[in-house]
Amino acid sequence: MNVVCLDLEGVLIPEIWINVADRTQISELRLTTRDIPDFDQLMTRRLEILDSHGIGIEDIRSVIGEMEPLEGALEFIRELRSRRSVIILSDTFTEFVEPLMAKLEWPVLFCNELLIEPDGRISGYRLRQEDGKRRAVLALQSINLTVTAAGDSYNDLSMLRTADRAALFRAPDSIMAENPDLPAFGSYRELQAFAAPHET
Amino acid sequence: MNVVCLDLEGVLIPEIWINVADRTQISELRLTTRDIPDFDQLMTRRLEILDSHGIGIEDIRSVIGEMEPLEGALEFIRELRSRRSVIILSDTFTEFVEPLMAKLEWPVLFCNELLIEPDGRISGYRLRQEDGKRRAVLALQSINLTVTAAGDSYNDLSMLRTADRAALFRAPDSIMAENPDLPAFGSYRELQAFAAPHET
Repeated sequence: MNVVCLDLEGVLIPEIWINVADRTQISELRLTTRDIPDFDQLMTRRLEILDSHGIGIEDIRSVIGEMEPLEGALEFIRELRSRRSVIILSDTFTEFVEPLMAKLEWPVLFCNELLIEPDGRISGYRLRQEDGKRRAVLALQSINLTVTAAGDSYNDLSMLRTADRAALFRAPDSIMAENPDLPAFGSYRELQAFAAPHET
Repeated sequence: MNVVCLDLEGVLIPEIWINVADRTQISELRLTTRDIPDFDQLMTRRLEILDSHGIGIEDIRSVIGEMEPLEGALEFIRELRSRRSVIILSDTFTEFVEPLMAKLEWPVLFCNELLIEPDGRISGYRLRQEDGKRRAVLALQSINLTVTAAGDSYNDLSMLRTADRAALFRAPDSIMAENPDLPAFGSYRELQAFAAPHET
């Protein structure tokens, strides 16, 4: 039995932190793993920045609520879900992406969670586990599911390399160049044909 | 992070084989595990019966296509999916239940698959794994997901006993009597409140 695991940001929705930086005009939120390679240090810094600007969960949710899925993403996932079980694997936080999940008609999502104080302050976060995307693929394979995966970033590579079938989607040139054996797609039409071929 | 695992037949849709027996007027298809306790023997017998009546996959899909989800099931799962990731764990077959999955707006489903010949004859089936419901719960727990489960039958008990939180839903009196420690619900309203409490 086949399931499809998809990365979220860059595949179905825009990059959250870049959008939040633009919409809040706090350019420091544009920090990425290129600036601070350690994910924990990066997230801790981002949450400090939000806090120092007095931005709580409701503020950031309303900013994220103004975002839309990528053009064509809803139609893509609607069709894919009618043909395969789909699980979104993401490093983002449930509380952030709920407004976008609603716009994608609530696909199943395994990601991380924020620690939120009663006054709405975001005091920290809870990582589901280290290398969570790859370990989710392994868990699905352990119950005899065949996993097809797609993602766009360096943090997707361990997931893609573990899946039974994998593709890059709208990945930067550097990732495509370093992974020439992975098929690389730019359109949802191509990704649909790859993820749910008509011959099962 | 919380996920909800639901049994399918009896929880969201009617019992498939009983309905197929009624609609095809082949009473022998009413055989259950009470008549043939071994699941493999039972399924093999059911497929023989279909075959002896010349019923192929398209015939049985059109019979199943006339069925509807249980009253209120769509509204229940729509609301639940907006609050939790939901995975349906079932012993049924993808190819049978697709028409009903469409009516439930395509929730994620882990189940079994049929072996279908080019002429549409159902020649056998492929069990994803033994004790598949329980092992799916274990796999989800292995990636630090907290599992709430609900089901109605004896074949759900190993899943329910493995989940972090579990309830019976519209279960026969015998199962409720034998499992007095499990909460038992009769309405979707109660099951919703249990599966996705507002305090997380």
